[in-house]
Amino acid sequence: MNKPLVTLTSDFGIQTQGCGIMKAVVLEINPNANVVHLMHGLPDFDISTAARTMETVSTIQVGFHVCVVDPGVGTRRKGIAIKTKRGDYLIGPDNGVLIPATNILGGCEKVVELSNPKYMKHPVSPIFHGRDVFSPAAGHLSVGVPVEEFGEELKFEDLVRAPYEEAIVKKDQLEAKVIHINKFGSLHLNVLASAWDQFGVAKKVSLKFQNTEIEVPFVKTFGKVPKNNSLIMEDDYGRIEVAINMGSFAETYHVSAGDKCLIKKV
Amino acid sequence: MNKPLVTLTSDFGIQTQGCGIMKAVVLEINPNANVVHLMHGLPDFDISTAARTMETVSTIQVGFHVCVVDPGVGTRRKGIAIKTKRGDYLIGPDNGVLIPATNILGGCEKVVELSNPKYMKHPVSPIFHGRDVFSPAAGHLSVGVPVEEFGEELKFEDLVRAPYEEAIVKKDQLEAKVIHINKFGSLHLNVLASAWDQFGVAKKVSLKFQNTEIEVPFVKTFGKVPKNNSLIMEDDYGRIEVAINMGSFAETYHVSAGDKCLIKKV
Amino acid sequence: MNKPLVTLTSDFGIQTQGCGIMKAVVLEINPNANVVHLMHGLPDFDISTAARTMETVSTIQVGFHVCVVDPGVGTRRKGIAIKTKRGDYLIGPDNGVLIPATNILGGCEKVVELSNPKYMKHPVSPIFHGRDVFSPAAGHLSVGVPVEEFGEELKFEDLVRAPYEEAIVKKDQLEAKVIHINKFGSLHLNVLASAWDQFGVAKKVSLKFQNTEIEVPFVKTFGKVPKNNSLIMEDDYGRIEVAINMGSFAETYHVSAGDKCLIKKV
Repeated sequence: MNKPLVTLTSDFGIQTQGCGIMKAVVLEINPNANVVHLMHGLPDFDISTAARTMETVSTIQVGFHVCVVDPGVGTRRKGIAIKTKRGDYLIGPDNGVLIPATNILGGCEKVVELSNPKYMKHPVSPIFHGRDVFSPAAGHLSVGVPVEEFGEELKFEDLVRAPYEEAIVKKDQLEAKVIHINKFGSLHLNVLASAWDQFGVAKKVSLKFQNTEIEVPFVKTFGKVPKNNSLIMEDDYGRIEVAINMGSFAETYHVSAGDKCLIKKV
Repeated sequence: MNKPLVTLTSDFGIQTQGCGIMKAVVLEINPNANVVHLMHGLPDFDISTAARTMETVSTIQVGFHVCVVDPGVGTRRKGIAIKTKRGDYLIGPDNGVLIPATNILGGCEKVVELSNPKYMKHPVSPIFHGRDVFSPAAGHLSVGVPVEEFGEELKFEDLVRAPYEEAIVKKDQLEAKVIHINKFGSLHLNVLASAWDQFGVAKKVSLKFQNTEIEVPFVKTFGKVPKNNSLIMEDDYGRIEVAINMGSFAETYHVSAGDKCLIKKV
Repeated sequence: MNKPLVTLTSDFGIQTQGCGIMKAVVLEINPNANVVHLMHGLPDFDISTAARTMETVSTIQVGFHVCVVDPGVGTRRKGIAIKTKRGDYLIGPDNGVLIPATNILGGCEKVVELSNPKYMKHPVSPIFHGRDVFSPAAGHLSVGVPVEEFGEELKFEDLVRAPYEEAIVKKDQLEAKVIHINKFGSLHLNVLASAWDQFGVAKKVSLKFQNTEIEVPFVKTFGKVPKNNSLIMEDDYGRIEVAINMGSFAETYHVSAGDKCLIKKV
């Protein structure tokens, strides 16, 4: 028996019934789905952090991935389903939140608007499309309904753009940005591990922020530098992270999400 | 293969093992159940909020719904299972927490006391009936044990009453109460969407609280009124909600849970 | 169809994607597993509290239990799988966190190091063995891969010791320690219910802490003593608990985790 993976991600607190309700909606349509809460409690309406979270599905098996970080619900923003080249379906609002994951999953194979009422839960609440549009879409896709059934095909390039672009790789420098700062004060950059490999760092880089420039070693883990020292490394999910061993890089160097970071080999 | 839905709701924090233990107990009895955590972390012993949460199962499929908000555990309060007219089973303490959901699910078909030790997990802890009485009951009911097997039939009208009554619908006014205030300061009233339809509001109502009287428009979503304006609308789960777009109604107008609210057409 | 129970416990916040990712990893290997989040959000790196939590699996069915409280990840600490006499497998780091549960589950039948790359998820992150080593091991064990396949057999007595020992039962006294203080300020002691039965208390004991000595009644539940009175009882999971009805024992008597507690019959 086929037991497809469906994941749910949202900015609801995990202790609210919204998360459980969405899981029940998927299971009503496909009782054989393995439904996993990937992450809830994302910062309200924070599309950048949510997009970063959706990227992490690239480290697990192919699945049907729903994201409900949706400040535009109730307006005319579209609901969409993107089929990726890897074979996943990404389901959520057309606000850019699904674009980085699409790129990491090989790119867009096809994207449609979720407009067919046949695959919605009725009555459709104007403020809870997670329950009434996105979760039902994941359920129906996971039992094999062709994506074309859900609505009109859209052009990938017409979708709302990603909340962040990828870093620009030049021969001698990487023009990067901070896309997320985690609870420990470590920076996640818009630099994929693959871009980093292409850039080709051996042991050390200089990082230039607006008011600071420092040199940091490129290492495998925190423990490779002494306590309170800075470092750069690959994170657990395929991006590059800047941190201080047992400290907060963001606080120490006054760096915020969105800041530019120019990386040069030393 | 039948994969029945079992939901779990409690005032345990979701990060405590109690929630996971209850899920494991259900799965030991019925490995084919689809067990969903509907909501945990409810305010300790808050029967009114818990009852409101249990109502939300009316928006999902028929299932076996456990509620463990149980300040009376260890006293002589009964454990009960209510079969609803819709076909659901509601399982928990006889403290009123299951009554509003029963009414919304079509009313009570049958109710029994959970007293048969055959369907409990032993030794039965005097302080954790969620694990040892209610979750096992959900498991056994979900594999088809007839509800009569669990204990003596009770009369629905003899159960402990609901923590709130439904609003009184008159021709020219609705005598309502605030049953819950959410984290945004919006009020949920004891007014079902069906009662609201029967009352028949066109565009506007006046709301009279103890010290305040204001007029608010009846709209579909927050976004239909300007920022900081008040409104009344249907919430996501079949009740009527009073709110301020991007603000806190409860704080602005000093309204608390339990307060009366007299609604008149304007 | 066999649907084995796999439980996951960690010091990740439950709202982080790490928990969901681990569940997906297990389900990729064994789509028929019933995966339950036992407890997340444990205090960071707190091996004692985590060990106590792992003990609670003794109240549920036999399963494959993963624990990721792993301050040593990235160092040379081993990953291990312990087969218990009851039939469970306990999977996690060799830092003592699995030892108390092993003892409660009848003792160690066999223990191996998790070193076979065939049963890991690649590339193995140096900082997330929960995803890349422990969850895959649970998945493969749950589909029937023999534990010998995972690596070299170790001697149970060579493993890192438990974060706490069991209390010493003498004829007239119990030499105990506080292993955990819960959010209500109640003390959990290193005294198993079985040791307590062996000690044989009738109605009352004296408890001697460093600076305090008090007498408390041995009762079934909080409600058996008046408000603000102290008591000693069995907790929900097979250990002995010291508490104040509606109060905090730890605060009132200035007791901390790790403190000694000498118990005498009165």
